[in-house]
Amino acid sequence: MSPQDDILHMRRAVGLAARGQGGTSPNPVVGCVILDTSGDIVGEGFHAYAGGPHAEVEALREAGERARGGTAYVTLEPCDHTGRTGPCSEALIAAGVSRVVIAVTDPNPLATGGADRLRRSGITVETGVLAEEAERVNEAWLTFMRGRRPYIVWKFAATIDGRSAARDGTSKWITSPEARADVHRLRAGMDAVIAGIGTVLADDPLLTARVRDGRTLARPPLRVVVDSAARTPEHARVLDGAAPTLVAVADDAALPEHLGGHHGPAVRLPRGPGGIDLHALMAELHRRQIVSALLEGGPTLAGSFLAEGLVDRVVGYVAPALLGAGVGALGPAGVTTIAEAHRLEFEEVTRIGPDLKVVLRPAPPKES
Amino acid sequence: MSPQDDILHMRRAVGLAARGQGGTSPNPVVGCVILDTSGDIVGEGFHAYAGGPHAEVEALREAGERARGGTAYVTLEPCDHTGRTGPCSEALIAAGVSRVVIAVTDPNPLATGGADRLRRSGITVETGVLAEEAERVNEAWLTFMRGRRPYIVWKFAATIDGRSAARDGTSKWITSPEARADVHRLRAGMDAVIAGIGTVLADDPLLTARVRDGRTLARPPLRVVVDSAARTPEHARVLDGAAPTLVAVADDAALPEHLGGHHGPAVRLPRGPGGIDLHALMAELHRRQIVSALLEGGPTLAGSFLAEGLVDRVVGYVAPALLGAGVGALGPAGVTTIAEAHRLEFEEVTRIGPDLKVVLRPAPPKES
Repeated sequence: MSPQDDILHMRRAVGLAARGQGGTSPNPVVGCVILDTSGDIVGEGFHAYAGGPHAEVEALREAGERARGGTAYVTLEPCDHTGRTGPCSEALIAAGVSRVVIAVTDPNPLATGGADRLRRSGITVETGVLAEEAERVNEAWLTFMRGRRPYIVWKFAATIDGRSAARDGTSKWITSPEARADVHRLRAGMDAVIAGIGTVLADDPLLTARVRDGRTLARPPLRVVVDSAARTPEHARVLDGAAPTLVAVADDAALPEHLGGHHGPAVRLPRGPGGIDLHALMAELHRRQIVSALLEGGPTLAGSFLAEGLVDRVVGYVAPALLGAGVGALGPAGVTTIAEAHRLEFEEVTRIGPDLKVVLRPAPPKES
Repeated sequence: MSPQDDILHMRRAVGLAARGQGGTSPNPVVGCVILDTSGDIVGEGFHAYAGGPHAEVEALREAGERARGGTAYVTLEPCDHTGRTGPCSEALIAAGVSRVVIAVTDPNPLATGGADRLRRSGITVETGVLAEEAERVNEAWLTFMRGRRPYIVWKFAATIDGRSAARDGTSKWITSPEARADVHRLRAGMDAVIAGIGTVLADDPLLTARVRDGRTLARPPLRVVVDSAARTPEHARVLDGAAPTLVAVADDAALPEHLGGHHGPAVRLPRGPGGIDLHALMAELHRRQIVSALLEGGPTLAGSFLAEGLVDRVVGYVAPALLGAGVGALGPAGVTTIAEAHRLEFEEVTRIGPDLKVVLRPAPPKES
């Protein structure tokens, strides 16, 4: 197998992995392609949902006896522990494959060791093939594992002059129904939706993922309200029970009855600059297996997340409208002078109805 | 000739007209296609610069005798007056064409009457063919003629959160060198560049069109400073003589020596809300044959232009950066509540270096 062939097969495996995106949390997405001894593809698989079969197991099942002596391409190091399914390393050994090509090694301290076990069984193992593409497809999960915090997507909707509400506070609607439907699809792929108490008090949002194609979500996103002073009203719609809700309250705030109690929505967290300590919130969400979260609502909260370096992606819905006054989409974000600007790069720019959808990622650090 | 053929030939003429864009001011752009009696194209022309031959004359010259009995497609009604060149209506009559197809009738009271004269000479005349496309290619000039004011393009550069400067006022550079070079190309196609006194005091801009391909501009854009209180400093770079400059001063303001005098840059205009009466400024620029102007610099001035309904196009250079604080690209624009937002539509969205260039036009009024 030439290195060029390895790349082609791994790219196919990455494509398979991508099919699991938005459904596997708290697991990674994984794709697997198996070749027989003559280099023909005899099995393919991907991890589709947590608790479902792993990619390797799917691919081996399809390949059957033809996997013997063949090559397996896996986007992520095969697991070596018994979780809800048996270890994939054992399955590959049992199937008799002679070579395993891995894109990204597993950062999960519980699952790692798969490559070692394969090697000890005499299997040729290569790692790092097409690692960059394979990392990107698993970016949320890798951020979760390596940073021990959720992957944070900040979403905003604004006019082309950066306003999210008019001078009198009205904001319905700046963007089109098409853009708003896209927000619901975006929410549906996340483990949590985060809003500030300001947004809850001003707009009383539901923060649920209402997807119009009739799908019901197996695991609706956790609604998180950052509310240091415990001001979430008893009849706020985020407390309606339609999805689980967490209200992050400072540990010294007085807790009203409707937020407290053993099964109440409140969680106590230390204070940080401007309210809740966001790193403590991140740790709490990590503990709750929240791999990805959509940060919505609240220029102040969004500014704090940015200032703390906690934004991994920005998704903006930009309407072809001008307001000239009113609340900006983003509040103070720790920037005083132009050299300190948060620099990103456009990853995706698409029209969505009359609006523009822009997806940005942090710019790589400048070489000096 | 079928109506379908007429449209195809007129589209070709519109394409020819477009080649004159940015060079014909204060004249319109015009394209002309001439067919012989068998329907073959025998002549093409466009108006390239003021004082140069008109499109019809160019096309007739190429066609020569083959124009006799043929058809002429003209994007704008042929002129009927003798300006720097003879009337085109006469040239078409003399060439013996038997049919003239016109897209847009001439709103110029001096030039109109061409179609009538052609008809009186027994030529078949049709008007309104592909009028919308032909209007669009001549949008600046038609706005100038019909509205008796320049066509105004508001240009801004901002971060994706709508800021044009950081909290400390720094703004160099928000956008990339590629975007800044594009601004110079944009300026080069306009008759004037307008800035507010705030921008002149803060940034001391040159406001010239510095085009890097070595072209020298036959007619550099007039630099216009909106400066009701006559605060433009003596050594401001806009007064450097590199291009003509007009300083619009309120008629009751005290005029410093460096702005006054018979050949001084100042023009006196009545006051309006927030400074100079912008409609009076528009009339003054119309009088000076300024067909198009680029409005740059000054969120306050831009807001006033928008509030007065004087913005025909918006060109935004949007950098993939976030500031969260600082001066917004647009100041108060007469909008209090969301229903009053200035609604536009995206006409063009392109990547330019790392930045995004968006071109917007006012949305057509909603049908009710």
